[in-house]
Amino acid sequence: MIRAAIAGASGYSGAELVRWLHGHPEVELGALAAGRQAGRSASDVFPHLGGAVAADLVETDWDRLGDAADVVFLALPHGEALGAAGRLLEAGARVVDVGADFRLRSPSAYRRWYGGEHTATAVLGEAVYGLTEWHRAAVAGARLVANPGCYPTASALALKPIFEQFGDRVGGAVVIDAKSGVSGAGRNARDGYQYSELNENLKPYGSGVHRHQPEIEQELATLGETPRVFFSPHLVPMTRGILAACYVPMTEPPSHDELEAAYLDRYASEPFVRVLTGAALPQTKATLGSNYCDLAVRVDAERGLAVVFAALDNLVKGAAGQAVQNMNVMFNLEETTGLSAVPVFP
Amino acid sequence: MIRAAIAGASGYSGAELVRWLHGHPEVELGALAAGRQAGRSASDVFPHLGGAVAADLVETDWDRLGDAADVVFLALPHGEALGAAGRLLEAGARVVDVGADFRLRSPSAYRRWYGGEHTATAVLGEAVYGLTEWHRAAVAGARLVANPGCYPTASALALKPIFEQFGDRVGGAVVIDAKSGVSGAGRNARDGYQYSELNENLKPYGSGVHRHQPEIEQELATLGETPRVFFSPHLVPMTRGILAACYVPMTEPPSHDELEAAYLDRYASEPFVRVLTGAALPQTKATLGSNYCDLAVRVDAERGLAVVFAALDNLVKGAAGQAVQNMNVMFNLEETTGLSAVPVFP
Amino acid sequence: MIRAAIAGASGYSGAELVRWLHGHPEVELGALAAGRQAGRSASDVFPHLGGAVAADLVETDWDRLGDAADVVFLALPHGEALGAAGRLLEAGARVVDVGADFRLRSPSAYRRWYGGEHTATAVLGEAVYGLTEWHRAAVAGARLVANPGCYPTASALALKPIFEQFGDRVGGAVVIDAKSGVSGAGRNARDGYQYSELNENLKPYGSGVHRHQPEIEQELATLGETPRVFFSPHLVPMTRGILAACYVPMTEPPSHDELEAAYLDRYASEPFVRVLTGAALPQTKATLGSNYCDLAVRVDAERGLAVVFAALDNLVKGAAGQAVQNMNVMFNLEETTGLSAVPVFP
Amino acid sequence: MIRAAIAGASGYSGAELVRWLHGHPEVELGALAAGRQAGRSASDVFPHLGGAVAADLVETDWDRLGDAADVVFLALPHGEALGAAGRLLEAGARVVDVGADFRLRSPSAYRRWYGGEHTATAVLGEAVYGLTEWHRAAVAGARLVANPGCYPTASALALKPIFEQFGDRVGGAVVIDAKSGVSGAGRNARDGYQYSELNENLKPYGSGVHRHQPEIEQELATLGETPRVFFSPHLVPMTRGILAACYVPMTEPPSHDELEAAYLDRYASEPFVRVLTGAALPQTKATLGSNYCDLAVRVDAERGLAVVFAALDNLVKGAAGQAVQNMNVMFNLEETTGLSAVPVFP
Repeated sequence: MIRAAIAGASGYSGAELVRWLHGHPEVELGALAAGRQAGRSASDVFPHLGGAVAADLVETDWDRLGDAADVVFLALPHGEALGAAGRLLEAGARVVDVGADFRLRSPSAYRRWYGGEHTATAVLGEAVYGLTEWHRAAVAGARLVANPGCYPTASALALKPIFEQFGDRVGGAVVIDAKSGVSGAGRNARDGYQYSELNENLKPYGSGVHRHQPEIEQELATLGETPRVFFSPHLVPMTRGILAACYVPMTEPPSHDELEAAYLDRYASEPFVRVLTGAALPQTKATLGSNYCDLAVRVDAERGLAVVFAALDNLVKGAAGQAVQNMNVMFNLEETTGLSAVPVFP
Repeated sequence: MIRAAIAGASGYSGAELVRWLHGHPEVELGALAAGRQAGRSASDVFPHLGGAVAADLVETDWDRLGDAADVVFLALPHGEALGAAGRLLEAGARVVDVGADFRLRSPSAYRRWYGGEHTATAVLGEAVYGLTEWHRAAVAGARLVANPGCYPTASALALKPIFEQFGDRVGGAVVIDAKSGVSGAGRNARDGYQYSELNENLKPYGSGVHRHQPEIEQELATLGETPRVFFSPHLVPMTRGILAACYVPMTEPPSHDELEAAYLDRYASEPFVRVLTGAALPQTKATLGSNYCDLAVRVDAERGLAVVFAALDNLVKGAAGQAVQNMNVMFNLEETTGLSAVPVFP
Repeated sequence: MIRAAIAGASGYSGAELVRWLHGHPEVELGALAAGRQAGRSASDVFPHLGGAVAADLVETDWDRLGDAADVVFLALPHGEALGAAGRLLEAGARVVDVGADFRLRSPSAYRRWYGGEHTATAVLGEAVYGLTEWHRAAVAGARLVANPGCYPTASALALKPIFEQFGDRVGGAVVIDAKSGVSGAGRNARDGYQYSELNENLKPYGSGVHRHQPEIEQELATLGETPRVFFSPHLVPMTRGILAACYVPMTEPPSHDELEAAYLDRYASEPFVRVLTGAALPQTKATLGSNYCDLAVRVDAERGLAVVFAALDNLVKGAAGQAVQNMNVMFNLEETTGLSAVPVFP
Repeated sequence: MIRAAIAGASGYSGAELVRWLHGHPEVELGALAAGRQAGRSASDVFPHLGGAVAADLVETDWDRLGDAADVVFLALPHGEALGAAGRLLEAGARVVDVGADFRLRSPSAYRRWYGGEHTATAVLGEAVYGLTEWHRAAVAGARLVANPGCYPTASALALKPIFEQFGDRVGGAVVIDAKSGVSGAGRNARDGYQYSELNENLKPYGSGVHRHQPEIEQELATLGETPRVFFSPHLVPMTRGILAACYVPMTEPPSHDELEAAYLDRYASEPFVRVLTGAALPQTKATLGSNYCDLAVRVDAERGLAVVFAALDNLVKGAAGQAVQNMNVMFNLEETTGLSAVPVFP
């Protein structure tokens, strides 16, 4: 059994990690650490856990966490994992960081987008970007995995095959118009995020200035040339789910069948990526509560445009589920272990 | 392995049965029968099943279903299970009827509330009402289980302990003000059920004339005297979840602690009933996607009133989950097998 | 033209007052006062007001407000109107208090339910409870109107006719099971009120201990005997709307037609109360954005029960709309002036 | 007083026309025609109209409608206005067609996108495309106005200023990623549009093959060159509201301030278009229930991209509100008459 611990267990990603790890047949779920909420029972902070998870939340003591766990999941506000990761690694634990601190490879990019110094550049050097389907071998050997952001997971799964196969025909800035449910904004109550102001409302935010834009560009750049991506997120009145529509201007677009074949081929053996064909298009609800990412392509030859749609559950494939998937790879388990739940529908 | 089949697989209860049976370690999921949709693949009818459930929906052939399965789940409109149940039993299968045809013990009550003759009274005689927590022994020996309605499950779990312990003090008609998410109304598109007319809307319906009222009275009557219940359902703008508030006028109400203790005691060893204490009250989201039913009590001595709140997921504990729970009991499995998933939150 | 001002303009009731007063043909909307937000433009605090309302929010200076306005609407947290009302009256303004400070007649009840001394008992003595349909004459002569709470408006409009006509047959505690949209909880972001935890969720709160219970009992008591009311509110995943289901145990219930006739008769000339007949039942969406309150009755003779349903928009008839209705009465205008907007549907 | 009639009064656009025309000080609302629902009272078909609109729905008799009305609003499925428009014009009425039959100038485009012959080409020749802010003079003189589609209204208001001022720098296909509430799909209950399958769901549909794409291209083409537009709509779990994000690749983008100034300038005197500046971005809720369209611009010089966001209420500025606005212009009234209601928020 793998002994797992969670730091940041009182947030939404933390709770989702509890859900998946609790049901994982090869995991023994240990400490649930949470700053302000330490001392309260898990079922007090999260009533849905009553009867299933008996533990109390504990103080975040890195040495103790690192000693007692084989793997520690970090679900913390950015900046807070910088110091923690190194200490956990030294204590012998492996780390999956669900937060943002080790996603950008470059300390200067981190400074620019997250507004502080990256104080753990040594550790950063060995972090592996955990987009499992594209970095499986590296994840397998990693001590520290930087779990991708929710939007970048959808965007990169959607865009990498077209960049890999037809990257030389991309003829301008890629636009990613992404829409997310509200849970992506985290659990902290904030002005403007009141129920009554988000319900029956739809709004863009952070267009072209969102932190996930450089993360997406960085991941696409691993395929060769430097892509230009304009990332344009929106907030949608639902709790879970991301839909990313990726618009790729192309000098000479492949045909629809050619493009679809490239996706079917690339993801043929991936258990968590479903390529929809024919008239079907992804919808977030078909992935809700599961680790699936659904994709579909469209081509408009006349307008020189290829489009890739991606849907996933931001708290699962976009956070906790992919983190567990990475853990499975790191510990040499069958990759789907504990992750085979069918989506909740309707 | 138990070979299971589903008739009525293209509705919401059917799809939810697929979800639970697919993940059940002791079940081999066989035929998914569905009238009009026969011939389509399961993932065409329910996109969320893609990648997980490869089967096609098949014609509803009772003989073939009964031969090939150890247990058949019926998720059919009322009336359609009347003929089917007997044929399946004859073919040697056991039956869990998620529909309404075998819930009311009396053919005349069936006629009054469902508007047709009960043409399977012989089979009706051996049907066991599958409120597992209260009829476990009978369920264990049953060939045919009538799975309770969603509202009656919440209402009876809420009211039976107070009727059992303090029934002689009940001093008037019990009011059950129940609220349900829209999935309880089924998958058929109907006028008045358009998204735009249910969203941001809240409405009562069927007050005092709903078919679940006699079902609740019948189940409470198993404890002795004939209770009078006024059942008052409402439609709430959400997909899943039932909350029942049960108001019990009492000549001499027990104290809050006394009443709470009765509930804690009664359900102490029940894995799927959680009695909340102190200031906590049930909320539907804390049960979403799981087989839990949450309860809490209040007492107003001055006004001669006891109140019991119950929350559950209408498609799980109120339908498919309880059906699988009953199957576990019928086949002598650990009752929680395949049902231990933590609720999806948020 | 009536010069009107609002104190507490940055909350939801305040914004709703702006909406109605802005469109009122006999009102000149003056100062919009708001503590913490003073200095910001109205359209910065409430983007929907852009282009329509050009004013800036100002500091809450009672003397200046009282001097410059014929009527001041108070939309403040409880306690904050205690001192203000007297000062405004002295300055010659009339006052409609949309908050709770002058609703309960008894200072000791105020202390018990609101947890502080009522420091304006002199002013309290002249406050008129502004349930317009029942206290029109007193409102007409009032300097200070205590606008009823949202739940009490629905509950009292629903229950007063049955108490007036058949009060001697009421045979036990009345249960009011009320359901409200989230805007009733105000604009302050709070833990537990995050979008992701209210959406797809339904929960009771404050059962039997809510401040609106004594307010409802007080208002029913104006008809004679002391009623016993158990008030049981619930939070529903929508923004606006209240539905109250009022269950009245009766020793000898009137027939449905007799009861319906009593309601049709009582409200025949009321422009904002619609009594639904036949199979129709109130639904909140049919009142959304309007000053209507919809009612319907049911009787279950066998169970000794009468039921009255009421639906309204908590921010309109339950707050700002009724406040403007009271202002119209106070200033001798046609009562529907500025309030005749048709509900927004769907 | 203008005598107005509505054909198609039982749909959502029809109901919204009733709402606005009922409150219009210069309109006398006459016949409400509706095929299948004829004979029922308006408040039976639309409970929210009770107390306000006493009329019964009537048969659709074109001659009678044309005789009795100065203006007839058509809110019909496509194809049904083809024959009607001419007959109404002959009878002396003016016509505002809220449907699609007279939007595309070319009969062959109509055939291609709507799948039938355009059998009223003579009438089509005199139809004026009623995007009021851009064709005010032509609308003023029109007998027949083709009210723009909901998406084209948002898209054209968003894109025309940039095409007018900087059209020569547009360097590729424009992508319009649009999101709509469900009411845009009309009132007919359909499979896949059940509440439970749209709630908590987000999905694209009709990408690149939606009928509003040629309508948008046609309207942009009035400024000169032929634009290439890829239109990509999505369905969002809310009732009302459209948000269009328009991505314009540019060879040499203007600066943000330059672009914003062009919009402020173009719409400075438009009462229903609000250009948001600084950090503000449009959100649908800030327009809900009103005739506003909110716009904001972004520029990414490095990526050669300008972005324009537009938000409006699809049933108001996207349908009934703009129709009334056009009527005001046609009848030489102040353009804002009857349309000055503040949005409903929250």
